[in-house]
Amino acid sequence: MGRYEKQRSFLKSNFTEFKNIKTDKMKGMPKPDEGKAYDSCSELINLPKVGSEILRKENIYECINSRRSTRFYSKESISIEELSYLLWATQGITGINKAGLTLRTVPCSGATHSFETYLFITNVEGIQKGVYRYLPAEHKLLFMFEIEGIDDKIDEITLDQPFVPNFAKKAAVIFAWSTTPYRSEWKFDITAHKKILIDIGHVCQNLYLASESIDAGACAIGIYDQTMIDGLLGLDGDEEFVIYLAAVGKKKEE
Amino acid sequence: MGRYEKQRSFLKSNFTEFKNIKTDKMKGMPKPDEGKAYDSCSELINLPKVGSEILRKENIYECINSRRSTRFYSKESISIEELSYLLWATQGITGINKAGLTLRTVPCSGATHSFETYLFITNVEGIQKGVYRYLPAEHKLLFMFEIEGIDDKIDEITLDQPFVPNFAKKAAVIFAWSTTPYRSEWKFDITAHKKILIDIGHVCQNLYLASESIDAGACAIGIYDQTMIDGLLGLDGDEEFVIYLAAVGKKKEE
Repeated sequence: MGRYEKQRSFLKSNFTEFKNIKTDKMKGMPKPDEGKAYDSCSELINLPKVGSEILRKENIYECINSRRSTRFYSKESISIEELSYLLWATQGITGINKAGLTLRTVPCSGATHSFETYLFITNVEGIQKGVYRYLPAEHKLLFMFEIEGIDDKIDEITLDQPFVPNFAKKAAVIFAWSTTPYRSEWKFDITAHKKILIDIGHVCQNLYLASESIDAGACAIGIYDQTMIDGLLGLDGDEEFVIYLAAVGKKKEE
Repeated sequence: MGRYEKQRSFLKSNFTEFKNIKTDKMKGMPKPDEGKAYDSCSELINLPKVGSEILRKENIYECINSRRSTRFYSKESISIEELSYLLWATQGITGINKAGLTLRTVPCSGATHSFETYLFITNVEGIQKGVYRYLPAEHKLLFMFEIEGIDDKIDEITLDQPFVPNFAKKAAVIFAWSTTPYRSEWKFDITAHKKILIDIGHVCQNLYLASESIDAGACAIGIYDQTMIDGLLGLDGDEEFVIYLAAVGKKKEE
């Protein structure tokens, strides 16, 4: 038995075990909500309609070819139109299937959509610094709260990054994706978790390419303080917790 | 303690535990090879140079907007130029960093590139049916072997798919990505495995978008017979094993 056996086994297809499991869906348990509820008194911000006029680099080949993990950002802000486009590209709803499930700009196993998108905004034109949540069904932003010294908070959460320490705090916006794993477990039980990680990879790749197409750059962040960020966002760390982050900012001329 | 505690904990950032680990890299153990070795007598197939002239739908906004998991394919073949583009978009090398590591069309934690791309080709113009491996450094295909009744083999491997049973065998090509986890474990130890799954999600999203841009469609496959596919590809199932698949074919008019 190898040193990493437990971890490696997590990467494999466990359909044999799964075949014998009766999922909560099969048991007739109620389907979890697709999106997280919010207070009807919340402050909502309309996001502009998304269209291809936002693009500065249209050609998909060029976008794939020039994509790089970008850790140096200019001081130029991101416009609300651009933010709207990035949110749409990562979690936007583009259809509804026969079962009434949303189809999005990214594929998701069983259309279970276990993610919520939180934003730490520091440099988006027309939006005050603070923490927000994206509402895909409404294509709106929900204002959560301000944080004193938000840049330093981002720094603390993202720890000491290799290559360019503290780059995240210099980004215009940080995406922090949480998962509510039961949305997928209800349907996929013990096979849900592998799918969730792959699915967040789908999401983040669209962020990379969409950023590239507006002359911005993205950098995913896999190292972060789990307890601190969950606590800050008011997530319980079990039924919902952060799984991945990415920084985005306009590219700096080098 | 919840029912899925073990699985959920795998999704979290375990930097606290990681901080106290001395990785094999830190111990001065030799760096694993980035790519899998191959016999110098192997039959190699040159892949055409990739450029944006291959695109039928150039606009990245349009590609993101119209992407769908596609399970119905026409009988039209994929050209070798198109296959070359899909391989480049998913694992192509676009640069070398200061440490001599390859940079690719997709981001990968620590540029550890633990993936190999195997192809089950059934309908690519000018390439005989069979199983191949992509060599990113050479941008070539390595012919591995033919299989009698390759379509039915694909069917067996991909099991009974929901929605459209047996769709995979009707695709023009099946991508099967393996991981060689030690390439990442050497650097990231117990934190490698979460990264590997997210990284294969990055890869597959580029396959979706690149397929869309050539009027083809892709569908990821997360349910497969682990033992059968590893056995077929000659992987030991521990040091290297398949982690994700995707079918690609030209879209069928509906």
